[in-house]
Amino acid sequence: MEKILSKTNSKIKFAASLNEKKYRLENGMFLIEGKKMLEMGLKANLVDSIFTTVELKNIPSSVKTYYVTDEIIEKISNEKNPEGIVAICKFPKWDNDYSKYHKIVYLDDINDPGNMGTIIRTALAFNYDALVLSKNCVDVFNSKVVSATRGALFLLPIFNDDLGRFSSKDIIVSALSDKAVSLENVKKSNDFVLVLGNEAHGVSENTLKLANQIVKIDISESIDSLNVAVAGGILMQFLQ
Amino acid sequence: MEKILSKTNSKIKFAASLNEKKYRLENGMFLIEGKKMLEMGLKANLVDSIFTTVELKNIPSSVKTYYVTDEIIEKISNEKNPEGIVAICKFPKWDNDYSKYHKIVYLDDINDPGNMGTIIRTALAFNYDALVLSKNCVDVFNSKVVSATRGALFLLPIFNDDLGRFSSKDIIVSALSDKAVSLENVKKSNDFVLVLGNEAHGVSENTLKLANQIVKIDISESIDSLNVAVAGGILMQFLQ
Repeated sequence: MEKILSKTNSKIKFAASLNEKKYRLENGMFLIEGKKMLEMGLKANLVDSIFTTVELKNIPSSVKTYYVTDEIIEKISNEKNPEGIVAICKFPKWDNDYSKYHKIVYLDDINDPGNMGTIIRTALAFNYDALVLSKNCVDVFNSKVVSATRGALFLLPIFNDDLGRFSSKDIIVSALSDKAVSLENVKKSNDFVLVLGNEAHGVSENTLKLANQIVKIDISESIDSLNVAVAGGILMQFLQ
Repeated sequence: MEKILSKTNSKIKFAASLNEKKYRLENGMFLIEGKKMLEMGLKANLVDSIFTTVELKNIPSSVKTYYVTDEIIEKISNEKNPEGIVAICKFPKWDNDYSKYHKIVYLDDINDPGNMGTIIRTALAFNYDALVLSKNCVDVFNSKVVSATRGALFLLPIFNDDLGRFSSKDIIVSALSDKAVSLENVKKSNDFVLVLGNEAHGVSENTLKLANQIVKIDISESIDSLNVAVAGGILMQFLQ
């Protein structure tokens, strides 16, 4: 039971560095917070080390546990009210043979970490097989994304790739285009990619060109659009 | 075209005070930010005054417009990257004869401002008539709620009241109870209240007692629950 009392300890500095994307990529590691996330990370066998102010039980001996001060947790945590548990995890590794995945969600430049995390949580809830991110999406290991997934990112295969790689599948794009059909008129598919667009600009022209079907959810004229995680939830539930 | 250059100007101090719930309630006023929100506030005839760093067109003469510095906007704004427009609005006033509202969403202690704002936006999108908040909900005029509504709070009647007041309507409660039926087995209604519960604890025991129907959305066993704004979106779309 090792204790760390100094904020300038090298392990603490390393953990804090993982709040930056650059260092996450360099090390293939990211941070998680709280009991529930730790539980899911341990189940996935991806926890490298734990920093905690509270006593923890049933931690495998291969995982290093450090007892630290509140001040140290505050230094490495991204929460307003930290639970007192922060852990370093390794990036999950997934088989990128896409032919194995039949229900995929594709995110076209999603910007907001909360939206991305919520979509990942929803995709797992409705038994989607994988999630793919376009180049300009927010980083999936951003702490706000990780927290909003509620652990789903340990269980759902996630890739960075171009939509063009999936042209053998039925590409169903959510967009407010003139060519869009209403939800109830979409042809369901057993091998498809559901595409959700950017919060402000929707999907790109290139994405629309790749679409086999364009779908919209009918809404009141009083408001421009639905939140993308809500629209995504309705579409994922319908198409599952 | 009045200019304000000092952060300690009394009008600026007053605007900044509206970031606290206490002063919002005392004055019956709240803050909005950005061009889009301003447009919707003006349409609803609820804008009292505007503080801006950019030139604005078509502002009615009854609305006071003050040109201010970036520093002043930063003082009164709640955004990370403020657009340079902050306005003071009056609370909307709604007819509280509930018999007029036939499709209602009830929020049972919703805590997260983003969730509440997104639910308000979704309720308007699916033509719900009103939204009712339980006592322990986050304040609807909190800046994060306001921003996430995308202006829907200018158009959707919103009240604070007890669920018991709606016992003449069909009360449909979303909960992971043993008694819950799956979405597709819910009896649709023309005069109903859809109840969504707290992010961590769901709905209260008292709420469950008032339910005419309890509904759940079927999800994978790999994850505990859906985000409440996503679940709410799926339910609102289905029951509309």
